Amino acid sequence: MKAINIGLLGLGTVGAGVAKVFLSHHEALEEKIGAPVVISAIADLDITSPRSGLTLSDLPLSSDPAKVLDDPAIDIVVELIGGLEPARKFILRALANGKHVVTANKALLATHGKELFAEAVKNKRILAFEAAVAGGIPIIRSVKDGLTANRITSMYGIVNGTSNYILTKMTDEGQEFIRVLADAQAKGYAEADPTFDIEGVDSAHKLQILATLAFRTSVKLEDIYVEGITKITPQDISLAREMGFLIKLLAIAKATDGQLELRVHPTMIPGTHPMSAVSGVFNAIFLNGDVVDDLMFYGRGAGQLPTASSVCADIAEIARRLATEQPGVPQDLPILGKNPLKLKPMEDVLSAYYLCIFVKDQPGVMARITGILGRHKISISSMIQKGRHHAKAVPVVMMTHQAREGSMQKALEEIDALEVVVDKTRMIRVEGADD
Amino acid sequence: MKAINIGLLGLGTVGAGVAKVFLSHHEALEEKIGAPVVISAIADLDITSPRSGLTLSDLPLSSDPAKVLDDPAIDIVVELIGGLEPARKFILRALANGKHVVTANKALLATHGKELFAEAVKNKRILAFEAAVAGGIPIIRSVKDGLTANRITSMYGIVNGTSNYILTKMTDEGQEFIRVLADAQAKGYAEADPTFDIEGVDSAHKLQILATLAFRTSVKLEDIYVEGITKITPQDISLAREMGFLIKLLAIAKATDGQLELRVHPTMIPGTHPMSAVSGVFNAIFLNGDVVDDLMFYGRGAGQLPTASSVCADIAEIARRLATEQPGVPQDLPILGKNPLKLKPMEDVLSAYYLCIFVKDQPGVMARITGILGRHKISISSMIQKGRHHAKAVPVVMMTHQAREGSMQKALEEIDALEVVVDKTRMIRVEGADD
Repeated sequence: MKAINIGLLGLGTVGAGVAKVFLSHHEALEEKIGAPVVISAIADLDITSPRSGLTLSDLPLSSDPAKVLDDPAIDIVVELIGGLEPARKFILRALANGKHVVTANKALLATHGKELFAEAVKNKRILAFEAAVAGGIPIIRSVKDGLTANRITSMYGIVNGTSNYILTKMTDEGQEFIRVLADAQAKGYAEADPTFDIEGVDSAHKLQILATLAFRTSVKLEDIYVEGITKITPQDISLAREMGFLIKLLAIAKATDGQLELRVHPTMIPGTHPMSAVSGVFNAIFLNGDVVDDLMFYGRGAGQLPTASSVCADIAEIARRLATEQPGVPQDLPILGKNPLKLKPMEDVLSAYYLCIFVKDQPGVMARITGILGRHKISISSMIQKGRHHAKAVPVVMMTHQAREGSMQKALEEIDALEVVVDKTRMIRVEGADD
Repeated sequence: MKAINIGLLGLGTVGAGVAKVFLSHHEALEEKIGAPVVISAIADLDITSPRSGLTLSDLPLSSDPAKVLDDPAIDIVVELIGGLEPARKFILRALANGKHVVTANKALLATHGKELFAEAVKNKRILAFEAAVAGGIPIIRSVKDGLTANRITSMYGIVNGTSNYILTKMTDEGQEFIRVLADAQAKGYAEADPTFDIEGVDSAHKLQILATLAFRTSVKLEDIYVEGITKITPQDISLAREMGFLIKLLAIAKATDGQLELRVHPTMIPGTHPMSAVSGVFNAIFLNGDVVDDLMFYGRGAGQLPTASSVCADIAEIARRLATEQPGVPQDLPILGKNPLKLKPMEDVLSAYYLCIFVKDQPGVMARITGILGRHKISISSMIQKGRHHAKAVPVVMMTHQAREGSMQKALEEIDALEVVVDKTRMIRVEGADD
């Protein structure tokens, strides 16, 4: 039986992981695929640095990407170089050359997915991307195949391990953000430039990919409201805990009234929610389908081997089809529905809110604040007034029922303009509380 | 384009759910499948009782199964009658007639899976069974496709909603098993004859199916050690909680030293474990793959619509292939490995244990008990001695480090034969504690 030839673009962390898994699990993979599979070309700019667990001289390593992209013998191209360019051009070239493509490149798909999937459809080739969202968790095939019969109604993701690690550590140890970030960088859980992770950009990339697939609607990155975790304080976390909540960076997509809301921001969730047990670098996606009801998927969202697990699953699925000459169908790609959802403007989003308002300890203050909230149709579900926190002000902590984001923003402007309010009010959105 | 014809065997709870989902999601399903799909025959012994949400006169309903099994126009037969016979004969007949088959019948697959899959391979047809394990959770395709690159090392399932509901309620309300069971029966969460659920038999069926797939080893039902939840007391639950543990009915499969251990029994897990948040009728499967590390899948394990979600996913996947004339391959079925695992005898299984020993409050008692444990190489990791529980005896509660099951059974025999021990010692196995 003819061997299936794989070409790897990139022998960095994930690429080396894929090569290692291929070597260590080769026999079982071939049994499952039903044909011989060979990594027959690898291209990387760095062909000399040692890769732990691999003997470079045993690998078909070259610095020339054409060996992977243009050799007619290569059936499947695996793009693991990351970034927008030249990854985009390489994938387009591979597809145009008739190759199936597997990628883990979330930034690229979130930015140029439309163009890349169109090229795959045009060439009748598969573009598989399980590893682009939530690392080792098989969320893409679950949404695409396992939940075909559902209209997805909502989706909550803890999809950035770095942020979740930082928030978990702040929660467990009561430390400041900046200190925990430095520790995460020292341990290799956060990059030297952590902006994408801590500012929510990476989560937004994954939400773009997941929401496009789940809601069958073409989502643009700029449609997603994004707020990172850099301003979360140990005080927010301890006040949240007092009320039975935890703070997580969530990527949220909801279909309500025929509209789609998309947002990434720090979110308070009840300590009893299944997502509250998602600690450290772990990821989870909690979703609701109109037929299946609630589902949660939990696992490692990054790392050499978990990511390689998903990349290899995609390779094996394509290889299996090639082995039986059933090369795949357009339905393997994200299919946009005939009735896509309209984007809901952020000011129309409904959410419950946590507020921490710093006020002078004077008579009449509460009446003025609740008056403003009432005028904006925001009602309070619970309130704690703390003792003197620092000399000049008292924090008033409240949870609201669901309210319009636009109303909340206006109310906050008015509240912060009161002369009895001495500091900017802290606001964190709340999900999963009964309302 | 030629329509794909579906025949339903059984219009009970799940069958009616499948029919409803087909009607309510028809347009989206056809978009995703890429061809027209029609339920063109339904057979059920009862063709007159109303089914909520369906108008019987609109359905192609008949009491003759031949209309589904033998009509050459039918492409996919969906077996939802449950039980061993005639379900087994019907599936064999459908496969022999060249039809693809979808089933939710866990008891049948656990008992006759080998014969049924062999018939599917012989006829080059797909036998899909996502709904047979954990209802709406897409665990079968996740293990089969999403984790192809992994050797699964362990698998823990909360796969029986009735038992989990009962244990959750006993935990939350401190009530006796027998009282909660009666309540569950009144609410429809437990059947009139609940034996299969509360004695662990249903969990064993699901473990047989999952373990065969995950470990690529032909598992027999009688290979699985099974112990139900009927003997768990509110005292066990409250003592467990005192030590930071919860009691769950787990279906466990582990590959250790080239051997496979398979067991279903009440299990203490730490309150910090992600499975501890799996409450009520929800199910979860927590597994470890050697590449992906830990994963958890959570959702509704039963019920009309969650089960229909998985049945319809299987139908859609087969229909999609038929629509593109890519009818599927042997690898779509569970593939037994070339090197199947040997079964580990239950007495060789390693586990940590919780023991509650009822002793006379006399000097020297502890020395005799710890002496017996020591002789059997069982070491204690923690111990609580409670005040007088009832007049004649004091409960001594301990957790052990990992020990051989065979040694524990022998030690328990010796302990219970001591004349200072006044009641049968309560033993519950422990998973997920550090050892």
